[in-house]
Amino acid sequence: MTVYVIGHKSPDTDSVTAAIAYAGLKKSLGMDAVAACQGELNPETQMVLDKFGFSAPEIVTDAAGKQVILVDHGDLAQAPDNLADGELLEVVDHHKIGDVSTNGPIFFYTKPVGCTGTILKELYDVNKVDIPANVAGILLCAILSDTVMFKSPTCTDEDKKACDELAKTAGVADMEALAMEMFKAKSAVDGVPAKDLLFRDYKDFDMGGKKVGIGQLELVDLSLIEDVRDDLYKAVEEVKADGRHSVFLMLTDIMKEGTDLMVVSDDPSVVEKAFGKKLEGKTVWVDGMMSRKKQAVPPLQEAFGA
Amino acid sequence: MTVYVIGHKSPDTDSVTAAIAYAGLKKSLGMDAVAACQGELNPETQMVLDKFGFSAPEIVTDAAGKQVILVDHGDLAQAPDNLADGELLEVVDHHKIGDVSTNGPIFFYTKPVGCTGTILKELYDVNKVDIPANVAGILLCAILSDTVMFKSPTCTDEDKKACDELAKTAGVADMEALAMEMFKAKSAVDGVPAKDLLFRDYKDFDMGGKKVGIGQLELVDLSLIEDVRDDLYKAVEEVKADGRHSVFLMLTDIMKEGTDLMVVSDDPSVVEKAFGKKLEGKTVWVDGMMSRKKQAVPPLQEAFGA
Repeated sequence: MTVYVIGHKSPDTDSVTAAIAYAGLKKSLGMDAVAACQGELNPETQMVLDKFGFSAPEIVTDAAGKQVILVDHGDLAQAPDNLADGELLEVVDHHKIGDVSTNGPIFFYTKPVGCTGTILKELYDVNKVDIPANVAGILLCAILSDTVMFKSPTCTDEDKKACDELAKTAGVADMEALAMEMFKAKSAVDGVPAKDLLFRDYKDFDMGGKKVGIGQLELVDLSLIEDVRDDLYKAVEEVKADGRHSVFLMLTDIMKEGTDLMVVSDDPSVVEKAFGKKLEGKTVWVDGMMSRKKQAVPPLQEAFGA
Repeated sequence: MTVYVIGHKSPDTDSVTAAIAYAGLKKSLGMDAVAACQGELNPETQMVLDKFGFSAPEIVTDAAGKQVILVDHGDLAQAPDNLADGELLEVVDHHKIGDVSTNGPIFFYTKPVGCTGTILKELYDVNKVDIPANVAGILLCAILSDTVMFKSPTCTDEDKKACDELAKTAGVADMEALAMEMFKAKSAVDGVPAKDLLFRDYKDFDMGGKKVGIGQLELVDLSLIEDVRDDLYKAVEEVKADGRHSVFLMLTDIMKEGTDLMVVSDDPSVVEKAFGKKLEGKTVWVDGMMSRKKQAVPPLQEAFGA
């Protein structure tokens, strides 16, 4: 039976490359594994796969009747639908421990590093399987992307060390140039509908029993989205109106290292509780905030009393 | 701040030795870690620690205000009380994925092997820390105990390989003799109150919203408990009456490789649903059943619709 290795909803570079890399490792260990993803690729991920010669993985959104391995997530909200009607074989992730449970023991491996790619590098090493050059290339891209070229507070020494080794294997001489190429692809907003921008890197969370959505747009310069700010706000309002208590859109300036946080909420006071600053109109600038996982989710969880 | 490495309630040999071994590893990696356990040692564990020169770990039952690492369990029912008021740093386990959740990413490592000791052997190796001979000795005992000397269906090739290597490090020439010494200590029932026997290796589970308790007594011969069967049944009834839907006591015959399952339940039909056999009076013999985790919990979860 085919095993689907699959990343989270709203696929990003880490979740797609992790699926490809782990399916490859599992295949070389004798498992009939294929990579899958839950939706269309974002422009950055498309660029990364093109650059290293991979085509997009098969789209799978329903786990019923399937054997699956989850990468880069471990909670039901981000997993394929009907996970309970499929069989969960493994989880490999670098996020908080969520609400996935099983009836028997499985391989479940999460680590507080900046990127699932760093863990996959380790798993190749531990299993004594050589990483193909093109797989090393996409894992390198994933780590550079998730750690915003080592600037994110989620970045660890292990991530940096993995990048050094992966760059050698992939034959990448200039990591910075590769990162800038990705950031430019990621910042592409021209002609993209506002809702697609909001959903480009979007996740729903359960916070104290309330449904809370958080999207993030990483930009080399916030001026790139000045013309579409009103449209983005409308999109946030629409998604909020669809049964959510709050929706946040992180407009993250990669170069200035901070986030302009756009908020639509039934209780905007959570913003001050979480970040110590009041909304200035529709957004609030949070200096130094680069990481949803490490700097947005935990204080919001706390503010929501979760 | 001291970090407490702690096993599950009703401590057994794996949970106590895992706490000692992992605290030792963490200490040699620079963490101020100490082993703890949640109650008195059972006779087998006492024998194992005595044999290899360890004293009993500190008893800790409340996690409030403490930094903790959980070993050999990953669900709240078996964790120290008030875990939410402490800080969970890591989980290392070989059971099903339970209900522990966190606000940020942590090191969470579970694997479908027969014993946490096998995972700890791997973690020493991965971290390139030599296992002290006496630590190797107690981990070897834990694996022999959890896998019932490789007879349990939970036992994997990895467990056997770990035992071979640990036996060399510990200087144990005859694994079988060591296992029999433990089994005899474990089978000691003379003069022990029935309720203590029931709680010697006991766990509560949430099954489809119902509280279900499962104890296990591993015996070299069921004749050892013939005289106390009625007292055991009374103890099971009392624990059941204390807010539980069902309580099961597995009277496992290590040599005959099967379990006489004692049952007190609001709905005894779950027994037939789970094991395909009706109760014969107060118990039912389930041939081949050695492992609570692999052979009792999953079919019961299923029967309870969890």
